[in-house]
Amino acid sequence: MEWRNVPVVITGGMGFIGSNLALRLAGLGAAVTVIDCMLSRYGANRHNLHGTRGDIRVVEADMGTEESVAPAVEAASVIFNLAGQTSHMDSMQEPLEDLRINQLSNLSLLELIRRSNPGARVIFSSTRQFYGPPRYLPVDEAHPIAAPDINGIHKYAAESYHLLFARVYGLRTTALRLTNVFGPRMRIRDAKQTFLGIWIRHVIENTRFEVWGGEQKRDFTYVEDLVDALLAAAECDATIGQAYNIGGCPPITLRELAELLVRTAGTGGFDIREFPAERKKIDIGDYVADDSAFRKLTGWQAKTGLADGLARTVAFYRAHAAHYI
Amino acid sequence: MEWRNVPVVITGGMGFIGSNLALRLAGLGAAVTVIDCMLSRYGANRHNLHGTRGDIRVVEADMGTEESVAPAVEAASVIFNLAGQTSHMDSMQEPLEDLRINQLSNLSLLELIRRSNPGARVIFSSTRQFYGPPRYLPVDEAHPIAAPDINGIHKYAAESYHLLFARVYGLRTTALRLTNVFGPRMRIRDAKQTFLGIWIRHVIENTRFEVWGGEQKRDFTYVEDLVDALLAAAECDATIGQAYNIGGCPPITLRELAELLVRTAGTGGFDIREFPAERKKIDIGDYVADDSAFRKLTGWQAKTGLADGLARTVAFYRAHAAHYI
Repeated sequence: MEWRNVPVVITGGMGFIGSNLALRLAGLGAAVTVIDCMLSRYGANRHNLHGTRGDIRVVEADMGTEESVAPAVEAASVIFNLAGQTSHMDSMQEPLEDLRINQLSNLSLLELIRRSNPGARVIFSSTRQFYGPPRYLPVDEAHPIAAPDINGIHKYAAESYHLLFARVYGLRTTALRLTNVFGPRMRIRDAKQTFLGIWIRHVIENTRFEVWGGEQKRDFTYVEDLVDALLAAAECDATIGQAYNIGGCPPITLRELAELLVRTAGTGGFDIREFPAERKKIDIGDYVADDSAFRKLTGWQAKTGLADGLARTVAFYRAHAAHYI
Repeated sequence: MEWRNVPVVITGGMGFIGSNLALRLAGLGAAVTVIDCMLSRYGANRHNLHGTRGDIRVVEADMGTEESVAPAVEAASVIFNLAGQTSHMDSMQEPLEDLRINQLSNLSLLELIRRSNPGARVIFSSTRQFYGPPRYLPVDEAHPIAAPDINGIHKYAAESYHLLFARVYGLRTTALRLTNVFGPRMRIRDAKQTFLGIWIRHVIENTRFEVWGGEQKRDFTYVEDLVDALLAAAECDATIGQAYNIGGCPPITLRELAELLVRTAGTGGFDIREFPAERKKIDIGDYVADDSAFRKLTGWQAKTGLADGLARTVAFYRAHAAHYI
């Protein structure tokens, strides 16, 4: 697909994944508008789009506030709907706020798209979280739904809105169920955007971090590979109305990941700690995505090895630490 | 279980199912408090509890408004959480309102219970709606989730809250997934609470009603049998943390049901009409509940035959038509 001059909206575009996508699309010549309500604790960071003013328009607003976002949404050919908060613990502590951010705003946005721009292509960033503890591995899209936390309940509802609006109203939506995504521009101040964030902070600061458990198996997607997947979804109309898993690097235990990170960085260290009881109740254990359906349909595949991705991530934060810590 | 003097809260207690439950429990000597925000278009009707003032306390408030409902909720041993709206079409036309009524208010109530009365027994009226068009019949609880409309998305999220709060916080919740419930005190002014409501209005008024399609198979629960099931759930701690289907009379096609209703009433008539396109998109086709799990666990079973239930329902509306039409 030719992205030059294509009007694109990215909700959550000041955040981790959104900003990486915005930079890629701006580089391809797309007319990018970012909509972001700038919740820094969920990853919005002005530095993420530093130096790009002019190329990328920024609307500072919650995507659920129609009057602020309508002009951009109405003019968009493609809408990447990535805004949200990913902290499972925060969703338990402030469930009503999670409902607003992760579900209500999506409904408002979809209602706006339905009324004002029903032909737009819409790509939603969903999550593997609501599969709950996997009943089998790798997990395909037919795996039962069993949200283990408030965040999972709201993300599943938000995904359901997207697919329902495709079926009932003919909207051109696709949902991608992400696993752990990592790379430059993620939040590393704490663990709100994955435990890997805080681990990276520790190796940058040459301190020790804690690995909870250590034997859980997870898969990781380097953010540039995910950007490839988002573009591939937008370019493939055969994905409309469906949800697809997105995986990435081969699965690895958290202990192995910690070892790889420390070895790659050459700094920091870690200690294995027992899993905190409070977190255990909402933890999902091992997870490995079966993303063969998406790969077959679009030809996409993850290209970045874990060691390579970690090295590039660590290099980014060494250069930009002041803006992320 | 001995219900005498047990403090019970019933949300949505001015509505169809809630009022039947309130009357039964008041008869058993329970100290019943009804919480209802009196949305008449969703079934709240002052006549439903007519003549019982004194026995049953009524708090007119949305269950999501903590300051109004907290005293009753904090004092309750058992909370039957039945408030909600059931119109699938309304949920599509006013999705944000459906989100507030069917999901947000449930989250607020559960947060209140968690903080102020975590030992209360909580029974939630869920729905078979979110199974979507059945992939097999009869439908058991392991059937995949595929909400066909906004209402289904929100009811599923609300049920998920109840089960999550059991697992994570130890709340004593059970969800019952209802199919078509009918009987005295249902809304018959229109079809917002099942098509059967408007059919009954027509036979009472001796006019003709429309049957859309006619070959869809459904099962029906007479409201007194459902009240039995609600009490059985509350009395059986083995159901805590789980969701159970509730069925009732043997399945019947809508055409057969219409014939039975007209024959039972001796008035009215019907015409078969093609299913409207707008509704077809969110219709679920045939549905038959497998409720064997709940029956085995609690010993409950539906006792009222369809013809008997219809006769009692028609007799009720003949006597009270002015308050329901």
